[in-house]
Amino acid sequence: MNSKLEDNNTTISYFKKEVESFVKERRWTKFHNPKDLIQAIGIEVSELSELFLFKDLSLDAIHKDKDLFENISDEIADVFIYLVSLINNLNVDLTSAFIRKMKKNEEKYRIEEFDNSSYRKL
Amino acid sequence: MNSKLEDNNTTISYFKKEVESFVKERRWTKFHNPKDLIQAIGIEVSELSELFLFKDLSLDAIHKDKDLFENISDEIADVFIYLVSLINNLNVDLTSAFIRKMKKNEEKYRIEEFDNSSYRKL
Amino acid sequence: MNSKLEDNNTTISYFKKEVESFVKERRWTKFHNPKDLIQAIGIEVSELSELFLFKDLSLDAIHKDKDLFENISDEIADVFIYLVSLINNLNVDLTSAFIRKMKKNEEKYRIEEFDNSSYRKL
Amino acid sequence: MNSKLEDNNTTISYFKKEVESFVKERRWTKFHNPKDLIQAIGIEVSELSELFLFKDLSLDAIHKDKDLFENISDEIADVFIYLVSLINNLNVDLTSAFIRKMKKNEEKYRIEEFDNSSYRKL
Repeated sequence: MNSKLEDNNTTISYFKKEVESFVKERRWTKFHNPKDLIQAIGIEVSELSELFLFKDLSLDAIHKDKDLFENISDEIADVFIYLVSLINNLNVDLTSAFIRKMKKNEEKYRIEEFDNSSYRKL
Repeated sequence: MNSKLEDNNTTISYFKKEVESFVKERRWTKFHNPKDLIQAIGIEVSELSELFLFKDLSLDAIHKDKDLFENISDEIADVFIYLVSLINNLNVDLTSAFIRKMKKNEEKYRIEEFDNSSYRKL
Repeated sequence: MNSKLEDNNTTISYFKKEVESFVKERRWTKFHNPKDLIQAIGIEVSELSELFLFKDLSLDAIHKDKDLFENISDEIADVFIYLVSLINNLNVDLTSAFIRKMKKNEEKYRIEEFDNSSYRKL
Repeated sequence: MNSKLEDNNTTISYFKKEVESFVKERRWTKFHNPKDLIQAIGIEVSELSELFLFKDLSLDAIHKDKDLFENISDEIADVFIYLVSLINNLNVDLTSAFIRKMKKNEEKYRIEEFDNSSYRKL
């Protein structure tokens, strides 16, 4: 039996429960409101961004530098942790929100519209 | 049989595959690099943040305003979509990164340290 | 004779020259490009933002806490320093850009449109 | 007599007064508090950042594209306008804050420490 949790066997609900327990145990729930949690996500994104500031890092260079890759993964995790706190706080089903938004994105950015040279932000 | 996808039955791998297909179909892969994807996450967080700017919205007010709640959910989805693009690009297992970072956070923020009045950002 | 520099006797050109010298002396010019400088401004704004995270600080509380006020002023200065680096790099006359944008804002947000209860972001 | 306002003849106090009048005329003062103004600065920085997303624009390309250069200048102005709103709100003398922070930066980043290949964020 292999109980190792990985992306292919771990649901969003797992993350929601883990983050909820972490917050409750520290009695932090009352500090959490959507506006401050969004602010916190933004701050974590900035910390992630800072690892790349004034640098041009190739994927290869990132994967060869074990400490850097761990730092990047840690900051990605912190962004995700606050995002999960936010969906806990707002009672959002992330999967349903994702599916609905992906449908909107698919209609807005029609496949046939994009040849090899163009791009648009979501 | 109920095939509705929700947080309690949807793994991270599902999101990774959906986002990968979306990006590949539009031939956007070549535009994706970690630095620009992090920048894109930051821009989506700002769009989410703008819904709360100069406002003090209670959870109750958010849930009563159906359009606002859908807008918030849409922007949360966009933040998550770019986050998934980033972990696809970097080949990060989000679950493993989350578990490792949560352990670090648990050691850094000991439960017994927090009485009812203190808080610290991750 | 009073040579103390203050907001009422200091032009934008003074800041441009000071920042240019600082950057040149450290041979940092080659690292500066608009995209990374904008990224740096965003990171400094996040550091400023973090001083307010999960807190509700009144103006009075800020002014009474000398260390906090100095920290806030320092982070504001860092945001401004990178903004000045950016206008140096792009060769923008900030005063002209400000005057032109204020005219656009004045037309977009007509005075008579705003009674005592409405607000819109620029 | 040439009364054209430019960076070499325009003090910070000019911007403070202009922004203060703009805000007062629209009765927006009561919406302004440091935390939301910092949030607004961050959103404007993101709008500026978006002009560069998934692109590698040279200084030359920027200066040749008149519309792009005006868009960039406009967004820079909006960042500055909210920064000036913030210093108005907090009653900060930007010049004094800048001079004090530059001294700290000069001590932290000694000129002799930087040869031609290293850089550090402020």
